[in-house]
Amino acid sequence: MSNKIKSIGILGAGLVGTLLSLYLKKRGYQVKVFEKRSDLRKSNNEGGRSINLALSKRGIKALEEVGVFADVKSVLIPMEGRMMHNREGNLTFQPYGKEGQHINSVSRSVLNEHLIEAAEQEGVQLCFDHTCTAVDLENTTISFEHNGKESTEHFDLVFGADGAYSQLRQAMFRTNRFNYQQFYIEHGYKELTIPPTESGDFAINPNALHIWPRGKYMLIALPNLDRSFTCTLFLPFEGDPSFETLTNKKSVQSFFEKTFADTLPLIENLDEEFFENPTSSLVTVKCYPWVKNNCVLIGDASHAIVPFYGQGMNAGFEDCFVLNKLLNEFDDNWDKTLNAYQQLRKEDGDAITDLALNNFIEMRDLVADDKFLLQKKIERHLQDAYPDKWLPLYSMVTFSDLRYSEALEIGKKQQAIMDEVMNRNDIFENWESLDFEEIVNQL
Amino acid sequence: MSNKIKSIGILGAGLVGTLLSLYLKKRGYQVKVFEKRSDLRKSNNEGGRSINLALSKRGIKALEEVGVFADVKSVLIPMEGRMMHNREGNLTFQPYGKEGQHINSVSRSVLNEHLIEAAEQEGVQLCFDHTCTAVDLENTTISFEHNGKESTEHFDLVFGADGAYSQLRQAMFRTNRFNYQQFYIEHGYKELTIPPTESGDFAINPNALHIWPRGKYMLIALPNLDRSFTCTLFLPFEGDPSFETLTNKKSVQSFFEKTFADTLPLIENLDEEFFENPTSSLVTVKCYPWVKNNCVLIGDASHAIVPFYGQGMNAGFEDCFVLNKLLNEFDDNWDKTLNAYQQLRKEDGDAITDLALNNFIEMRDLVADDKFLLQKKIERHLQDAYPDKWLPLYSMVTFSDLRYSEALEIGKKQQAIMDEVMNRNDIFENWESLDFEEIVNQL
Repeated sequence: MSNKIKSIGILGAGLVGTLLSLYLKKRGYQVKVFEKRSDLRKSNNEGGRSINLALSKRGIKALEEVGVFADVKSVLIPMEGRMMHNREGNLTFQPYGKEGQHINSVSRSVLNEHLIEAAEQEGVQLCFDHTCTAVDLENTTISFEHNGKESTEHFDLVFGADGAYSQLRQAMFRTNRFNYQQFYIEHGYKELTIPPTESGDFAINPNALHIWPRGKYMLIALPNLDRSFTCTLFLPFEGDPSFETLTNKKSVQSFFEKTFADTLPLIENLDEEFFENPTSSLVTVKCYPWVKNNCVLIGDASHAIVPFYGQGMNAGFEDCFVLNKLLNEFDDNWDKTLNAYQQLRKEDGDAITDLALNNFIEMRDLVADDKFLLQKKIERHLQDAYPDKWLPLYSMVTFSDLRYSEALEIGKKQQAIMDEVMNRNDIFENWESLDFEEIVNQL
Repeated sequence: MSNKIKSIGILGAGLVGTLLSLYLKKRGYQVKVFEKRSDLRKSNNEGGRSINLALSKRGIKALEEVGVFADVKSVLIPMEGRMMHNREGNLTFQPYGKEGQHINSVSRSVLNEHLIEAAEQEGVQLCFDHTCTAVDLENTTISFEHNGKESTEHFDLVFGADGAYSQLRQAMFRTNRFNYQQFYIEHGYKELTIPPTESGDFAINPNALHIWPRGKYMLIALPNLDRSFTCTLFLPFEGDPSFETLTNKKSVQSFFEKTFADTLPLIENLDEEFFENPTSSLVTVKCYPWVKNNCVLIGDASHAIVPFYGQGMNAGFEDCFVLNKLLNEFDDNWDKTLNAYQQLRKEDGDAITDLALNNFIEMRDLVADDKFLLQKKIERHLQDAYPDKWLPLYSMVTFSDLRYSEALEIGKKQQAIMDEVMNRNDIFENWESLDFEEIVNQL
């Protein structure tokens, strides 16, 4: 790679592409971003439901570094824990972390608009309605279709921040020795809405992420700024129950009555929404290398993950933060930076990919399990008593900026220790008299 | 799927495509095979070296079933075991199985010619120089480029027997919920030649597969009908030593002197061949499903594996055998057949994929290890004493038609038992006084 990098092209003006453009523009590069969709700020919301995401520590840190967090803060809704709904409609609240710690529900499109605005103000060139038709990895050129016309542009460096179905990754896929894996879980998802009450208020507690865990499937709900909630049903595509078996209004109604009864008075237009909204699939993508010549994958394009740890966006934002930190370290030597970046970050991408897959089981199943809840209680106790020694896995991932790969490793050790603790016969009666220091010292 | 299947199109006139065409033609279908290369029987051998393969039980059984084995027998060279060459040039022979059991070295192109000939005689239509440009999974059509002209043809059913870089699989790759993995090992390979001696004889023992195991890399040699051997060097692409470091004649010469000294008088034109022959990569492909609408993947297209168990061709031939057996069972009901086929055979494809990857470590490293050799000796003893109870893993894979997935499972159990046996302190001195019955009964 030539180290005379001046012009940088970025595919994708989504969350990661726009944040990356800010980082690079601030470093003094000429940055141009290409997006196949129309400008979010001008176009209607494409008829698609505005999906909300959970912003936490890593994402916030990356936004702060380029000075856009203050601006974004006002559109966040804090969620302090999980609110579990059992079949009878009884609620149990489980805090995510310590007092004052919370994750943040945020609208993808609102956050994206903020980032687009900030990038534009910084002097980034944003080209909407540009569909990438080809990437030439040898010559670092991108070809587009825009208003029916084809054009090709050269850059010194090209980033693919173009998501789980990345065009740049497709080009890399066709080169020799490119390792690649795409894997779909058996579940699909469908979004539904809980509108505000007649008096214009949130219908359920807005400061929690609501979960209806049902073993093989689940429903969740996150609050929106307009006081509605977006619910997401995660259900297998095939089997019973599954999207395959819910073929008419009657079966949907009876499924919800049986399993999510307390949502029936809340979800407006269940019948319509269920059959009008798409059933989407959930893909995991792993690949390597992330760098070929002067082309680089970043965010979902390099590590698409399932949403169950709320880390997809946070991981992508952290990619930008880590890249920027390495550019500082290596004084903008791109050869060294990109080499270090992909080696370091691949481990963390793999770790959060596995963590996200595992957390689905926790969310849909374990959170309704007494033993699991007791374990969480004991771990909270460990954390309170030995805050420097025991940080629960969820907190390491969500409220710290420890490398994902380290969090995964420590989490495995913790689980092995806790497995033994939870195996004691009298654990439910006598957990308070455990030798906590001895437990912590095993780590 | 309509069960009115009459016309079947097959992509690929390689080993699996031609054998499959024979099976299907014999069942009464109209079968047309498309191949992008020229007819092997007419064209020169494309300048490429004729690669030889190891034909064993499963492949033979599948050839016998359609009556082509008798015809092929004369071109096989039996290899009764591994001949290990250490750094000093000393030889150790390790039989593959029991007395009389052997695998067979066969030229890919010679075997392929036999199958093409047999298919043509059976009435299969063979179309060479047809490059598949697209497959329409919805309408079961294939588009081709032939002599500069484009055409599209419809079939009731299409098989992709078009290898590790299958066009049909590429079409499936673009559909939703297609699980896919491609993985390159760190080693590449390069072919070299040991020509016959001046008196026209084999330069080394032709009834063995020769191995120069060197830990992180290895050289192997298989005999050819013309009394030459084709050697294959498996070496990492990067690191030391690697293809990256062998950049000139001097470094190649000194590498061979140091590690494969006894081959230097045998390999003709090492300097020329090393730099003229390509360095190829080794890919593993797993995917699922194998059936979309009326399109089916078979052979390497569905499970490309590394060559270290000598099972790539055998697995592909067995695919045809299993498919045919299921067609018998389900009375040519294709819906039921293909459903059963992919479920059953995916497990076995995964198993042989893993077995092949593991066997690389065995071949390049363990075969030179005393403990490993003693374990093999003990297992041979177990097999002799309890032939119905203990069949070593290699024999299950190579000399039986037990499902690969079962062989893998049993092999794991055997390894756990043998790990304990081999851990005994006095195992080298006292292995003959082991309680063999007790060992066998643990299985």
